[in-house]
Amino acid sequence: SINTVPAGALNFSRSVLLVVSAALVFFMQAGFAMVCAGAVRKKNVQNTMLKNLLDACGAVIAYFVVGFAFSFGGMDPESTRTDFIGKENFFLMGVEDYAFWLFQYAFSAASATIVAGALAERCQMAAYLCYSLMLTGWVYPIIVHAIWNANGFLSAMHMEPLFGVGMIDFAGSGVVHVTGGLTALFATAILGPRRGRFHDDSGRKLDTPKPIQGSSVALQMLGTFILWFGWYGFNCGSALLIVNEYTGSTVALAAVNTTMSAGVAGITALFVNLWYLERTTGEPFFDLTYAMNGALSGLVAVTAGCGVIEPWAAVLTGIVAGLIYMVGSRGLIMVRLDDAVDAIPVHLMNGVWGCIAVGLWASPTRISRFFGRAPHPGWFYAIRDGNPGDMRLLGAQLVGLLFIIGWVMSIMVPFFIWLDWKGWFRSDPLEEIVGLDTSYHGGLALLNSHQDSVQPEYITA
Amino acid sequence: SINTVPAGALNFSRSVLLVVSAALVFFMQAGFAMVCAGAVRKKNVQNTMLKNLLDACGAVIAYFVVGFAFSFGGMDPESTRTDFIGKENFFLMGVEDYAFWLFQYAFSAASATIVAGALAERCQMAAYLCYSLMLTGWVYPIIVHAIWNANGFLSAMHMEPLFGVGMIDFAGSGVVHVTGGLTALFATAILGPRRGRFHDDSGRKLDTPKPIQGSSVALQMLGTFILWFGWYGFNCGSALLIVNEYTGSTVALAAVNTTMSAGVAGITALFVNLWYLERTTGEPFFDLTYAMNGALSGLVAVTAGCGVIEPWAAVLTGIVAGLIYMVGSRGLIMVRLDDAVDAIPVHLMNGVWGCIAVGLWASPTRISRFFGRAPHPGWFYAIRDGNPGDMRLLGAQLVGLLFIIGWVMSIMVPFFIWLDWKGWFRSDPLEEIVGLDTSYHGGLALLNSHQDSVQPEYITA
Amino acid sequence: SINTVPAGALNFSRSVLLVVSAALVFFMQAGFAMVCAGAVRKKNVQNTMLKNLLDACGAVIAYFVVGFAFSFGGMDPESTRTDFIGKENFFLMGVEDYAFWLFQYAFSAASATIVAGALAERCQMAAYLCYSLMLTGWVYPIIVHAIWNANGFLSAMHMEPLFGVGMIDFAGSGVVHVTGGLTALFATAILGPRRGRFHDDSGRKLDTPKPIQGSSVALQMLGTFILWFGWYGFNCGSALLIVNEYTGSTVALAAVNTTMSAGVAGITALFVNLWYLERTTGEPFFDLTYAMNGALSGLVAVTAGCGVIEPWAAVLTGIVAGLIYMVGSRGLIMVRLDDAVDAIPVHLMNGVWGCIAVGLWASPTRISRFFGRAPHPGWFYAIRDGNPGDMRLLGAQLVGLLFIIGWVMSIMVPFFIWLDWKGWFRSDPLEEIVGLDTSYHGGLALLNSHQDSVQPEYITA
Repeated sequence: SINTVPAGALNFSRSVLLVVSAALVFFMQAGFAMVCAGAVRKKNVQNTMLKNLLDACGAVIAYFVVGFAFSFGGMDPESTRTDFIGKENFFLMGVEDYAFWLFQYAFSAASATIVAGALAERCQMAAYLCYSLMLTGWVYPIIVHAIWNANGFLSAMHMEPLFGVGMIDFAGSGVVHVTGGLTALFATAILGPRRGRFHDDSGRKLDTPKPIQGSSVALQMLGTFILWFGWYGFNCGSALLIVNEYTGSTVALAAVNTTMSAGVAGITALFVNLWYLERTTGEPFFDLTYAMNGALSGLVAVTAGCGVIEPWAAVLTGIVAGLIYMVGSRGLIMVRLDDAVDAIPVHLMNGVWGCIAVGLWASPTRISRFFGRAPHPGWFYAIRDGNPGDMRLLGAQLVGLLFIIGWVMSIMVPFFIWLDWKGWFRSDPLEEIVGLDTSYHGGLALLNSHQDSVQPEYITA
Repeated sequence: SINTVPAGALNFSRSVLLVVSAALVFFMQAGFAMVCAGAVRKKNVQNTMLKNLLDACGAVIAYFVVGFAFSFGGMDPESTRTDFIGKENFFLMGVEDYAFWLFQYAFSAASATIVAGALAERCQMAAYLCYSLMLTGWVYPIIVHAIWNANGFLSAMHMEPLFGVGMIDFAGSGVVHVTGGLTALFATAILGPRRGRFHDDSGRKLDTPKPIQGSSVALQMLGTFILWFGWYGFNCGSALLIVNEYTGSTVALAAVNTTMSAGVAGITALFVNLWYLERTTGEPFFDLTYAMNGALSGLVAVTAGCGVIEPWAAVLTGIVAGLIYMVGSRGLIMVRLDDAVDAIPVHLMNGVWGCIAVGLWASPTRISRFFGRAPHPGWFYAIRDGNPGDMRLLGAQLVGLLFIIGWVMSIMVPFFIWLDWKGWFRSDPLEEIVGLDTSYHGGLALLNSHQDSVQPEYITA
Repeated sequence: SINTVPAGALNFSRSVLLVVSAALVFFMQAGFAMVCAGAVRKKNVQNTMLKNLLDACGAVIAYFVVGFAFSFGGMDPESTRTDFIGKENFFLMGVEDYAFWLFQYAFSAASATIVAGALAERCQMAAYLCYSLMLTGWVYPIIVHAIWNANGFLSAMHMEPLFGVGMIDFAGSGVVHVTGGLTALFATAILGPRRGRFHDDSGRKLDTPKPIQGSSVALQMLGTFILWFGWYGFNCGSALLIVNEYTGSTVALAAVNTTMSAGVAGITALFVNLWYLERTTGEPFFDLTYAMNGALSGLVAVTAGCGVIEPWAAVLTGIVAGLIYMVGSRGLIMVRLDDAVDAIPVHLMNGVWGCIAVGLWASPTRISRFFGRAPHPGWFYAIRDGNPGDMRLLGAQLVGLLFIIGWVMSIMVPFFIWLDWKGWFRSDPLEEIVGLDTSYHGGLALLNSHQDSVQPEYITA
């Protein structure tokens, strides 16, 4: 089971390799920071990056104090008990498997930092801090408990799992990315768009939304590569959580599927967008954003299934992920939602898609290699085996998604509305115009030391 | 043999560590991207980086569909059979060792992306895409088959190897770097130099070639460090391909040699250049490019021998590598070949040198620890053992190099000439002046939204 | 003992994982380079980064030739012998455990490069090179010998250790960070502050020191994340040096403690500074530098104890580290010491604190799991066990610190004074004004090619 520590050399290797994986997942914070730094305007770079760093630091405290306890405290894989929340292992007390703790911490930090980019350039610091602690300490752990704790009601490792199979979310398309992406969606909707994105200075709706140029495509590309690199820790590390004779091959399968989906999704998004531009504007061009976010979309989508689907299914997952990104990114603009780094199509929409894809293509062989049993496969295999009515896994995936959506919504929407009502959520217009770096991070002091007024060229940069 | 999977804990560790190595090799794409982004002008940064990302994505598809099959399909290490190309394992079908597949994929992507920098700032996108797929799907796999497949005619693992010994290219100075570097050479020669590099605006040859300042030395330095870091995966991961009682020490040997050669070559190139400038111009300075590309040259050169030479030989390899870079970089300018990132002296010239160095210094002890036999050592050891006529290994290395050169030339030269003749290779002069980011990546649309003409200061940046 | 190589699968894993750790430690060079590049002005970016690369390259040579031999040459863990310096294993001769060599090399390079940032923007190249070789080849190895070599007089692995317990510096808060940080302190004191930092152009002392804005916060943040990431190799790799049944859990403990201290210290420094600004100036702001350097301070401080303290002690270590950074950074300015990257409060002060923290909180269980014996625990445990007089470990830690301070001072202070007296240490005022990139790295040639005078806007950048 997920928390059992095997003996001897295997134990040694598994523990160390899990730490290596956790380090890679931690390094994804640098990837998020670079993606965000590249995608926002120069005047907000510091603010956005600080949020990434604070997610990493704050999650340490939140996960140490309550997060891990709520998620995995007192888990008993051999009991048929189902509970909502863990009640032991606060402050790491009684925890034996520290490598597991670290790996889970890194995941919780990733979940929080997904939101940073979407809110960029217009969110108050205090609001961000509150939200970040609440996500890593409360909202996210409950979801982890339901899906990854053997006593969670959705867990595929439960002795008596939902629909006889439980939800399979191998490395967290749902647990991590839908949770983060959904929070980003709610926050963005309530926060409203950045000034000038959809309206002119006098508040009139623009016919064409104004694209906001980021500060550095080079940093965004670097961030994309770092994220892809770190994803090998994210997905393959999850395969280390159950050690048996197949673990080596499950790790390799997860890595291959991760690569497949990312590569295919990047190519799909780039070229379908090229074709679409050609058809609609007659001026096709290679849009880097589509290649970068397409690849990230493929990574998100394959996360749920990387250890239980075959590579051909990873290719299909990637193709659909690239298309979802393309449609989703344009759709957001149509509904006038402003997402500075496209976190919503990348993490939310493709997180949802990833969970569904498992319901379609999870291979019975791969499932049983990891979980030790495979009561119900993906729908494709059920049909192949003459069992087209066996949609139990797909059903469990959908129930799981509904649970995540319902839970996040029930906590986060009231919270953000309350923040907004108190005036603690959105920055003042002047702060936003001048830039959050100047407003919150001492730029004003710096400017003051040289002259009395803010330089106009600084503001527009 | 290279493809045999050992059992139990060792299998687990080997599989996972190979995935870790593959992830490091993949991360080298970020290194190449940063080196390129730093070395080109601001107006071409996006274009160059997109090529790096597309190499990583495109190689997924090419290697999945045909690349791996051509390289390793149906390999039988216990047969004396020799063939030219693999005919099985398309679409990963029948492949058991997924970790091995992933590692080889990452190598093929590296091979392709070596070229990106050399062609920077003047190559059409479509031409680059065609070339990249052809390299990873056809040209490179055939070379891998000949040298790394136990049924390849040059393979040191062949039951009846060439000259009784076969070519030893431990991690690919020849297979990866000569292949990529040679392609860069042919492409650069046919594409011609960037505007203004060797000629003035009216086409008159300049007395002194005009240096073209890159956009950011910081990114170039970052890229250099990322490449060096990733190289530990590249070279040490190759030591994991044959698992026996010495694997742990071969991995460590490869790591130490990699470090030695890189450090020594960086120092050599920096200081010899300093001394040379002092002698010729009287104005010596520490040229960062020499330190960075010197270190990379040392890495390339030691790649062929890292697991089979002693550290003292790695030091010698590095010294020569630093000198080769220095002479090669100046030589390129003398023959008026324009290589924006010096990929040709780094990867081609030092790739060739690395293969020759193995013929000189491969240690019989180290060879037999890895391959399980050492019929003929490097020439130095043959001489030491009173056998100065035994130049069989050196001979095999030279034949291997000739094969690589002949094969790449026979495919790539006609291909590039055809592309050029069709007008699909080189960007229009105006596209080049304005910058490829504006020409191919939507910059024009962006400029249009603000004013009707391209800003002059943007063009010169 | 530290140098004994275990057999079979464990040996394989341990060797490869040590190489992985060494690669991570090596990658910290990129982190230092980015932190420095971000913290200095644009006109000195190249100069600072070259020093980081040269530390990595130069340490190869210094450690290959003499460094390792002085540190570990001829170590015999089963002898009661104590010596000052190793006299074997020059040029890697007779060394069997190459992975251990590589890991130690990476540490020596880290030790040297800590200094680069503190001296930035005003130190001559030649002086830096001399100092770097002397540190990695002579000063640092002697300290390693005393503390980490089983025959060193401070070693906890000595058969008859100091005070019956020896100094415990698990991964080098003292050995690496105090050594580097102290050198930075002496160098900074003798070199003097950058022009304009504490005095105006006519040399009059400024009432308020003038902050010098770095070139890029994004690069500094990237560097911080890379350092944190690499620190998992630094601290966890050290746990691999003694392989026994607990190694897996010691690695995980080290990783968890590392994370704890970093996160808590970053939060502490950021928010206490916020609170302090609010109290003193009434204009509180979130200062990124405090979050970044706070986290690094936590990493430095936990390095000595990461494998022998419990997570709650790591939290306390981190809180104090954050406070020390805050006070130390302000203190430096009060005494008019100019440290461009705050290396002194981060590495020196928190290195000292880390060694003391071990004396307070080292757990007897954890010590005996790593060292196989735990004659005297941290003072907290001694008190708990009714033994408040047992301050032997704390005493050994203090003696160790005094040794490091005395040794570094006795070599480095005369050396820097001599360099300064010869006029080889500090750059000419004009070189400093124009920027070291132009002065030492060919910028002048570049400028000359365009115009006859240095552009004023370049100088102020």
